[in-house]
Amino acid sequence: MSGVDFVKGHGTQNDFVLLPDPDGLLELTPARVRALCDRRRGLGADGVLRVVRTAVGWDLGAPVPDAEWFMDYRNADGSIAEMCGNGVRVFAHYLAWAGLVSPADPLVVATRAGIRPVRWEPDGQITVEMGRVLLGGADTATVAGERYEGVAADVGNPHLVCVTDTPLDSLDLTVPPAVDVRRFPHGVNVEFVTPPANGSVSMRVHERGVGETRSCGTGTVAVAAAVLGGRAGELVVGVPGGQVRVRLTTEADGEPCTATLTGPAELVASGELDLVWWKAADESDTAEER
Amino acid sequence: MSGVDFVKGHGTQNDFVLLPDPDGLLELTPARVRALCDRRRGLGADGVLRVVRTAVGWDLGAPVPDAEWFMDYRNADGSIAEMCGNGVRVFAHYLAWAGLVSPADPLVVATRAGIRPVRWEPDGQITVEMGRVLLGGADTATVAGERYEGVAADVGNPHLVCVTDTPLDSLDLTVPPAVDVRRFPHGVNVEFVTPPANGSVSMRVHERGVGETRSCGTGTVAVAAAVLGGRAGELVVGVPGGQVRVRLTTEADGEPCTATLTGPAELVASGELDLVWWKAADESDTAEER
Repeated sequence: MSGVDFVKGHGTQNDFVLLPDPDGLLELTPARVRALCDRRRGLGADGVLRVVRTAVGWDLGAPVPDAEWFMDYRNADGSIAEMCGNGVRVFAHYLAWAGLVSPADPLVVATRAGIRPVRWEPDGQITVEMGRVLLGGADTATVAGERYEGVAADVGNPHLVCVTDTPLDSLDLTVPPAVDVRRFPHGVNVEFVTPPANGSVSMRVHERGVGETRSCGTGTVAVAAAVLGGRAGELVVGVPGGQVRVRLTTEADGEPCTATLTGPAELVASGELDLVWWKAADESDTAEER
Repeated sequence: MSGVDFVKGHGTQNDFVLLPDPDGLLELTPARVRALCDRRRGLGADGVLRVVRTAVGWDLGAPVPDAEWFMDYRNADGSIAEMCGNGVRVFAHYLAWAGLVSPADPLVVATRAGIRPVRWEPDGQITVEMGRVLLGGADTATVAGERYEGVAADVGNPHLVCVTDTPLDSLDLTVPPAVDVRRFPHGVNVEFVTPPANGSVSMRVHERGVGETRSCGTGTVAVAAAVLGGRAGELVVGVPGGQVRVRLTTEADGEPCTATLTGPAELVASGELDLVWWKAADESDTAEER
């Protein structure tokens, strides 16, 4: 096909369509993002990662971040998004696969939430610096009439982490867990987590405005902070889509932690979007259910 | 990528991964079909259409159909499937796009349900001969305690067509409509249809074993047979994923109808599957929720 280049990939089954656009020439409208992410009439994805040089693609005004590549992340509904931990891994994996960066060199990726240092692990996994995690107070979530004790955590977005003995499989997360809306006026992502054993936990997550997902990068960081009580350490977190490793470090006791998130990134396929389809996608926007 | 060729396409949002394999060299295991159709860890589709020459790909024994190309159709769960009306259109569209057939020439496609003559319409739509439709007796389906009168129809698979004044949007099809299991021991696809107006209807469909879908080719044929009372004629059928046209013809009054189904086919993208991913797909089969 003569068309627009794309790559499809995922990180623990959080999946993306990448659009290589180094020189910032692509006219990426919200309608085209919606068509790309539509799982029936497009390729299907949780979001689009446009791969563009920061110098030509940065859209937040001065100062322009000191990073060669900008992860221009769009939600499946076509809106602009700030950051996605799983997305940065897939983005970095693509850059190395395409020969645009060398895994031997340090890499920082520009995102709308700031620059994100990335490093390649010897086993092929990828580590992303996720910034600061702040633990909040105790709170509860209610699922099917049952109350679950939890602790709030902020990873740039709000989380409520509930460690529970209830088998995770038995939870009905097809409807949002009920929380105190005065405490979470902008909604909250809710994680249900098994008690830690041998340095690992399993979790399921309900993302605000989305529903249950197969993975949530910031959610795994919130879980580690809650389970480790905000202290330095490491936790392996099993999510429905795979497994990641969170490491917390702290400058001094009582200071907020910073986190790194290590996990896999996979590329599934690459090719070209059909140009007839691409042009029509900008015109025949239906905003249908994906 | 150095990998396996693929094309992604859909017909009224019934979507497929096509695997061009003219010489029948591809090792297409059920695990690979499941990985391809997985909407998170793969490309995502309702099914896979392997494009193979009948002479080398036919797998039902003698007689080998007299058709150059065989639509080797696999369900998303990896199982072998017989036929798919929307799939044949996408299959034919691919053959013409790839230059393997000319739209100027007659085309017949071999399927496990027999050969299917195909013709290209002047407006780019594609018509497929769907074979015989048999109308059955009156019956009912129950949704959320409400009974809907319908008529049974057989298009190679069983249908129950319920014409109703109830707004289609208000029907809860997240659970299967209740039917008389003695009348439909192998289950039934249930269509809910608006009363015909100006030669057209709208429908929603619940497919047995699948759930609500955005399109069902045999379902639109069953709807036309029920609405036209088994007589020759034409009906435009709106489905959630688009619009198709069904034409019924009959040799003589009282004889069973045969049907043609006309609708669009779109190709979205083409490229190569990553070989690392393709090889791993055969080993790390998880049979997870798509």
